[in-house]
Amino acid sequence: MHLTQGLRRCVERRRDELALVFDEQKISWEQFETRVAKLAGGLRDLGLQADDRVAMLAHNCPEYFEFNYGVLWAGGAIVPLNNKLPPDQLAYILNHSQTRFLIADEEFRPVIEGFLGKASSLEQVIYFSSTSALELNKQGKVETMKNISYEDLLGNANPLEDQLRGYEDMAGIFYTSGTTGTPKGVVLSHRNLVWNSMGGMLNTDLDESTVYLHATPLFHAAGSARIFTMISAGATNIILPKFEVISVLAAIERYRVTSLLLVPTMIVRLVNEAKFDAYDLSYLRSIAYGASSMPQAALAEVLKKLPHVSFTQAYGMTELSPSATFLESRYHVLEGPDAGRLLSCGRATWGADVRIVNEQREVLSAGEVGEIAVRGPMVMQGYWRNPEATAEIIEDGWLHTGDAGYKDAEGFVYIVDRIKDMVITGGVNVASIEVENCIYQMDEVAECAVFGIPHPDWIEAVHAVVVLKPNSACTESQVISHCKTHLGVYKSPRSVEIREQALPVSGTGKIMKNELRKNYQ
Amino acid sequence: MHLTQGLRRCVERRRDELALVFDEQKISWEQFETRVAKLAGGLRDLGLQADDRVAMLAHNCPEYFEFNYGVLWAGGAIVPLNNKLPPDQLAYILNHSQTRFLIADEEFRPVIEGFLGKASSLEQVIYFSSTSALELNKQGKVETMKNISYEDLLGNANPLEDQLRGYEDMAGIFYTSGTTGTPKGVVLSHRNLVWNSMGGMLNTDLDESTVYLHATPLFHAAGSARIFTMISAGATNIILPKFEVISVLAAIERYRVTSLLLVPTMIVRLVNEAKFDAYDLSYLRSIAYGASSMPQAALAEVLKKLPHVSFTQAYGMTELSPSATFLESRYHVLEGPDAGRLLSCGRATWGADVRIVNEQREVLSAGEVGEIAVRGPMVMQGYWRNPEATAEIIEDGWLHTGDAGYKDAEGFVYIVDRIKDMVITGGVNVASIEVENCIYQMDEVAECAVFGIPHPDWIEAVHAVVVLKPNSACTESQVISHCKTHLGVYKSPRSVEIREQALPVSGTGKIMKNELRKNYQ
Repeated sequence: MHLTQGLRRCVERRRDELALVFDEQKISWEQFETRVAKLAGGLRDLGLQADDRVAMLAHNCPEYFEFNYGVLWAGGAIVPLNNKLPPDQLAYILNHSQTRFLIADEEFRPVIEGFLGKASSLEQVIYFSSTSALELNKQGKVETMKNISYEDLLGNANPLEDQLRGYEDMAGIFYTSGTTGTPKGVVLSHRNLVWNSMGGMLNTDLDESTVYLHATPLFHAAGSARIFTMISAGATNIILPKFEVISVLAAIERYRVTSLLLVPTMIVRLVNEAKFDAYDLSYLRSIAYGASSMPQAALAEVLKKLPHVSFTQAYGMTELSPSATFLESRYHVLEGPDAGRLLSCGRATWGADVRIVNEQREVLSAGEVGEIAVRGPMVMQGYWRNPEATAEIIEDGWLHTGDAGYKDAEGFVYIVDRIKDMVITGGVNVASIEVENCIYQMDEVAECAVFGIPHPDWIEAVHAVVVLKPNSACTESQVISHCKTHLGVYKSPRSVEIREQALPVSGTGKIMKNELRKNYQ
Repeated sequence: MHLTQGLRRCVERRRDELALVFDEQKISWEQFETRVAKLAGGLRDLGLQADDRVAMLAHNCPEYFEFNYGVLWAGGAIVPLNNKLPPDQLAYILNHSQTRFLIADEEFRPVIEGFLGKASSLEQVIYFSSTSALELNKQGKVETMKNISYEDLLGNANPLEDQLRGYEDMAGIFYTSGTTGTPKGVVLSHRNLVWNSMGGMLNTDLDESTVYLHATPLFHAAGSARIFTMISAGATNIILPKFEVISVLAAIERYRVTSLLLVPTMIVRLVNEAKFDAYDLSYLRSIAYGASSMPQAALAEVLKKLPHVSFTQAYGMTELSPSATFLESRYHVLEGPDAGRLLSCGRATWGADVRIVNEQREVLSAGEVGEIAVRGPMVMQGYWRNPEATAEIIEDGWLHTGDAGYKDAEGFVYIVDRIKDMVITGGVNVASIEVENCIYQMDEVAECAVFGIPHPDWIEAVHAVVVLKPNSACTESQVISHCKTHLGVYKSPRSVEIREQALPVSGTGKIMKNELRKNYQ
């Protein structure tokens, strides 16, 4: 179980076929492997030792694939950096992970120069330009101790043999977004990520005929996991710098994309795009989504626009490499015996035991709400340099997700809410997702987010932010009365904001409720 | 990576659906798990400790599934016994593996009583009757120290919790047939067999809609591997006591079997069966085969009779858990760009590196014939209590198969012959398989085997044993002249035996050339 083996296998099977496509750049499997082996050689030349960390700061680009494989090939571990973080947090992560080398797109040079003095473990920054990745940058020279050119590094290096790290060896440290407190470094092993790849292939029928569009951030653990899964499957990889509705639609048409991963918000934006019908999406076969479930009303619309596409939901978290459950495509229907499962995040994936426990971590029965816990080969090795946090979240092999939910008698898991996000209003728990699902049933609604805002009497009050579809009209009080009718008074929003601009989403497409909350503190 | 986890997952997903079917016996997933947990409890009551070996002597039956899972559930390791071995060899294996407990079908009581005095590590024999497995045998009592009833053991035991052995823990010791010298015990871990299950599922599209017919011996490593794969996939398992052409055809019709594993000899016998057309095989979707490749002429006939079935070849050996390469279904065609690969055993499976080495174990180039070597998570832990033999076959993680072959530029592996089986006639190597393929092209030929027999001048001479199809006629000299035309003189048989009875096959369906050779010593 070496992640790098998947690449060798593809080269043997598909040597001259396309591995990576990035706008006009087309990289074959053999070219990809050669560059990986040269990057590995270059990193070794710089002094990289087994388990040394190498970080990456970039938007999606082919170099991200080279980074993921080249660092592992050299025996190191990857630290992909969230490119939206402020300099101080980047410096914190580099120091905490004791990263020695940073590969970065020139675009981020100003950011990097802003924190370079604070990143004391960092020995070298290796810059590339994502707009000319495959042309050797003849002008690039080793300018300073901390600033060398990526293409020079590769150009001067001998291809290294795969150092064959694998199994329990560390493959990477993935820093969680840290909505509360400082970010934590999730250590995932080769075995963790190989296992996720096998499950992903089994679940979505990924193979060498797959043309996969990487449109979500590769710096996220899910992005890295998709890189490893697609290379394991031998898929052709289409890379977009970032998610944009029109670019995604255009790429699906242009490259005859068969498969991609999105979050429900993104899927809804795709099908609501005014120019949706202008694109030929007939090659599309499957969309996987995560981060939240798909409201029934949204799915109805999505299925109407994309009737030939099968949908799969995955649930998990970085600490689970990242998938623990799958809702299979057969449950993405509106009628028949398989309907009615849409609000579930599915059932345990291969190798996963999933259970629900109470605050004392005693196992609960079917239907009882508690914390979701997962055991299996996808459970992380631990938090980097944080044994206390590791011991808190993992006990006897069970990882406690912090998500509240229940499991029905057939093993379907339903997430009620992030335990810490639940609105507690007048002492009563209200699951934001339930209110959101209710609001999404309104024909006029394009997007919504529900969260608690401070209230003098109830401590928190349920609040909704709503974006309407183009040419739709709806008032705040209509939203509230719709909810009162369907949910009763106490779960209904006390206040509603209807706004024109889209909701703020994170790099991974999650609606950033923290951003929205700020306006109400 | 616990093999037992697959069973728990099925129970959660398919509690009341059929897990095992054996003639009139129908066992649900929940019943299966309960019996597994009780068998585990019973074995613990008898004193079983972690890693203790438990052996099985039986034809295929539901108890074989209970044995595979119950022993692992209890923390032990399985030792499935070849039920065709003479008493002395069984005693040797039990002693060598230091097996403490033996579960056996009453049918084998005489055999067991014949060697009981010689099996010194054995503490208990636990008998069951495969004809009444699910009825509690009220008459069964603990008769002697070495003879208790399986149903009593289960009836008196409390269900045990899964002891959660997994990963590198030993799952079983599989004794090789030992064509030369004493049998060797191949130690396979949970990880070895879990990996094989994942690869098998990916390769043959096995899932919960699969109805799988276990018609080859479950005592073989491939049989155990299929048990674990099918439980991982959640397939319904139809069990036949042993392979018989009519029983297999009847079972496929009766149970609407979708998938099974055979060897090419068996497949050819199926389609050549006079009553073939009397059976409805329309639900059959896939046949996997191994042990040898499928001659082009045989495939042509098979595809004519089973045009709706997809074929997959697997190549490997017990030491490889057991699969290392797969020839995918797309290559089982007679024309088009994918044709012409039939004599290949396919390409490396997920996680496998495959290479060809010379006698000094140096890597050879594409097209050069040498020994096939395999590295990856399927390589056995080693030979039980035989570090010398282990060191001889495994070097730097590479397992040396003893098979001669080459790999083409696209990674397809071609087996030339078992190194030790090749006919060396007048100093020239002749690959038996090449001669066999040539003879199979004759319309009159149903089965054939080619091997070397002693010859005063050439040391060995090429000899062929041929079985004709019903109502066909053909002479020895016609066979020889056919080969001379297509292969040239030196590779052609010097002598041919045309016989009426079918060729002797091993429990796994391999033609037993050793048996045939005996007549010529």
